[in-house]
Amino acid sequence: MNIFLSEMVGTMLLILLGDGVVANVVLKQTKGGSSGWIVITAGWGFAVTVAVYAVGWISGAHLNPAVTLAVWLQGGIPSGMVLVYMLGQLVGAFLGAILVWLTYKRHYDVSDDPGLILATFCTGPAIRDYKWNLVTEIIGTAMLVFGVLAIFNSHNGIAGGFGPYAVGVLVWSIGLSLGGPTGYAINPARDLGPRIAHALLPIKNKGGSDWSYAWVPIVGPLIGGAVGSLLYKFLLPLLTTP
Amino acid sequence: MNIFLSEMVGTMLLILLGDGVVANVVLKQTKGGSSGWIVITAGWGFAVTVAVYAVGWISGAHLNPAVTLAVWLQGGIPSGMVLVYMLGQLVGAFLGAILVWLTYKRHYDVSDDPGLILATFCTGPAIRDYKWNLVTEIIGTAMLVFGVLAIFNSHNGIAGGFGPYAVGVLVWSIGLSLGGPTGYAINPARDLGPRIAHALLPIKNKGGSDWSYAWVPIVGPLIGGAVGSLLYKFLLPLLTTP
Amino acid sequence: MNIFLSEMVGTMLLILLGDGVVANVVLKQTKGGSSGWIVITAGWGFAVTVAVYAVGWISGAHLNPAVTLAVWLQGGIPSGMVLVYMLGQLVGAFLGAILVWLTYKRHYDVSDDPGLILATFCTGPAIRDYKWNLVTEIIGTAMLVFGVLAIFNSHNGIAGGFGPYAVGVLVWSIGLSLGGPTGYAINPARDLGPRIAHALLPIKNKGGSDWSYAWVPIVGPLIGGAVGSLLYKFLLPLLTTP
Amino acid sequence: MNIFLSEMVGTMLLILLGDGVVANVVLKQTKGGSSGWIVITAGWGFAVTVAVYAVGWISGAHLNPAVTLAVWLQGGIPSGMVLVYMLGQLVGAFLGAILVWLTYKRHYDVSDDPGLILATFCTGPAIRDYKWNLVTEIIGTAMLVFGVLAIFNSHNGIAGGFGPYAVGVLVWSIGLSLGGPTGYAINPARDLGPRIAHALLPIKNKGGSDWSYAWVPIVGPLIGGAVGSLLYKFLLPLLTTP
Repeated sequence: MNIFLSEMVGTMLLILLGDGVVANVVLKQTKGGSSGWIVITAGWGFAVTVAVYAVGWISGAHLNPAVTLAVWLQGGIPSGMVLVYMLGQLVGAFLGAILVWLTYKRHYDVSDDPGLILATFCTGPAIRDYKWNLVTEIIGTAMLVFGVLAIFNSHNGIAGGFGPYAVGVLVWSIGLSLGGPTGYAINPARDLGPRIAHALLPIKNKGGSDWSYAWVPIVGPLIGGAVGSLLYKFLLPLLTTP
Repeated sequence: MNIFLSEMVGTMLLILLGDGVVANVVLKQTKGGSSGWIVITAGWGFAVTVAVYAVGWISGAHLNPAVTLAVWLQGGIPSGMVLVYMLGQLVGAFLGAILVWLTYKRHYDVSDDPGLILATFCTGPAIRDYKWNLVTEIIGTAMLVFGVLAIFNSHNGIAGGFGPYAVGVLVWSIGLSLGGPTGYAINPARDLGPRIAHALLPIKNKGGSDWSYAWVPIVGPLIGGAVGSLLYKFLLPLLTTP
Repeated sequence: MNIFLSEMVGTMLLILLGDGVVANVVLKQTKGGSSGWIVITAGWGFAVTVAVYAVGWISGAHLNPAVTLAVWLQGGIPSGMVLVYMLGQLVGAFLGAILVWLTYKRHYDVSDDPGLILATFCTGPAIRDYKWNLVTEIIGTAMLVFGVLAIFNSHNGIAGGFGPYAVGVLVWSIGLSLGGPTGYAINPARDLGPRIAHALLPIKNKGGSDWSYAWVPIVGPLIGGAVGSLLYKFLLPLLTTP
Repeated sequence: MNIFLSEMVGTMLLILLGDGVVANVVLKQTKGGSSGWIVITAGWGFAVTVAVYAVGWISGAHLNPAVTLAVWLQGGIPSGMVLVYMLGQLVGAFLGAILVWLTYKRHYDVSDDPGLILATFCTGPAIRDYKWNLVTEIIGTAMLVFGVLAIFNSHNGIAGGFGPYAVGVLVWSIGLSLGGPTGYAINPARDLGPRIAHALLPIKNKGGSDWSYAWVPIVGPLIGGAVGSLLYKFLLPLLTTP
């Protein structure tokens, strides 16, 4: 039960701060309007940092079904816990999106571009092409998982509370560098939870929730998480044997 | 007495560097004019970092009545000290605003938008709606307090002088993500102290000090500080019990 | 063999995240389009950080023939390993560029400026003047090598997993400050590997691979790496003798 | 002798990376042209970080006569060393400016605004008013010195190589927040050394070296350094006595 709650709270904070920065940049009349990609990516990176400080020492702060899958493939959690992690993440992401909506309530009221409103909840492709969007999400998530496993490899000696910041920098990096085509979901819960919230919340000028794309940021990250995890498992012995 | 002075000095530095960056961005003919939200939010984040280095090991560097309230609710300081903390913070914020005015004196002289001049002292809403402005400040401050308590939870093992930077990143994050609607006061002293300075200082083109809004960044952060603190107190046992 | 693989994997990640940010900023219809120099330089800096976390504890994460040359001049690796390092870096850079191409495939399809397409692979001069371009690359790489040797001097006591971040900040700094004239290759593998990939990959609107310039970001960084390393070797005894 | 050399090398690196970022932003046809205040201030902040890594453990990396004055007032160095420090800093700053000129040689050739060319060497006021420019430099330098003394107070427990980064963040902060009116010299050597270089170097479209202003970024920082140091010395016992 504490695992469920921990992942729920952590992912809720992640989405509050993550989707929050998108709301600030794309909704109308905000103070951070049109402040660009550096703001979006720093916002998501720090969102990860804060969320990992909050619950990292409790459940490990996966905050992401792709990370949970990856950790499970490394033998880091028992099979019975996989769904507990994932459900906590999904519920937390849903709740975080509602908090963003409350925070920016009046700005949702005055915004009238359904595409931008949707963008404050979930991701969408810059150029719609499911196959290549999938490739982008797979590469981005494999990078995320490989990076997380690498950062916390004991040989790096992460200590002094620096770990959550390092993971935030990793996500900041992925956003800057690999986020261009699909907005880097790299996390099924981060995308699906808020998409459900978008479908349910009473927002004046919202359009559809783009369900036709919704499978890409679920399937892509899960494949990418498995690829990154298995690659790390496969490479590590090769790298460390003389 | 040392607590009063420590919070006064720390909050003075916070406002010097925090309101300073707003002055740089919005006043006329400065070198950082119109440099945007990334500059504003980095400036405030680092202002916190510097102020916490200055007095963190003395009084704990609350620098914020909402944080003092939150720490008191955790049993971290005795009741008799609460007002000492808060008064030190208010006086410090007032003094910090005067230092900003001295630093940017000639730029205040040539600026002629009363709204922007006021913005270098205290916060104002992007869309004026007291109820929703209050909601935004409550959520932002709850995030701040929850984040501060989480970062310094001993399980995170913050060490090596990294703590003040981590808190700065938290405030940078909140600014990026939750600052859009109200400019993230999230601190009654940060708003009220400089507002009083604005009312008293002889500034050529200043207008009113917007006292009708002044209660929002006092009441909101105090509620948010209590909410964040109680939430943390309530959640922690749930999160850590199997 | 593990050295070869380690440098290959590390440099592949470096180029995936490094060239990736350039693709995001200069290709058409991306989410980070035209987001500027702060995005480019932060992206490359964090790319270094992530790559050093990945393989730093295995091969030392040179990721750069100029660094390998510099470390060899310090006596840090045996002569027989120099080419192993450099070949691993070159192959890794080539593979990393292919991953960028896959990540941004559809954006390559719709981009039509051959110069910008080439810029997502390798560097080019802002003002073409081989002599002065060489000077810039020499100074930039000498700064890189001197900085890396300085950061990891044991007197700085780098610990707690902070090293990879510090090196990333160094590269971010060099990009911000010395990258203006040539786009700071400061690394022969980072430039040559992706340039070969550019020549081979089937990209619709690509032009030539600018082979006439290719020697500058090879020769310049190698000279700079030697200069920086010898300068450090020569200065350190002078600096530390009373 | 090692103190002189150490401060010379450190300040040379500081100016290479610090003036370098200004050259990138304001000279013509560079890759970082017009990239704004976040780039300028991050560039100077990281320049400090890199320079402190280079020589911090040797001479303490004052890199600034105002800091040397401040440290001397704290009893941190003997009187006989004060001029040795300052001369090393001045020579280093002069050499650093020459390195920037070499790095950006072709961009100096094509730039034709004498004011912007001068700005890549030394500071100038946004609004020329010697009295208020002096006030700004005094406040900025007092903040710098107070901040440096605070960061390295042993109670903060700075360790793990984090110190140089923390000082860089302090300078980044001061740039963002207090740099608007005068471009934050906050360092007599940083301003005078490159100004002399500007006067001597053969630059096509350069104008005068603005010697009428040159005393402000010398006198202001020296006063500010003394004020910050004495304030810290005076406040610390008050802050720490119950």
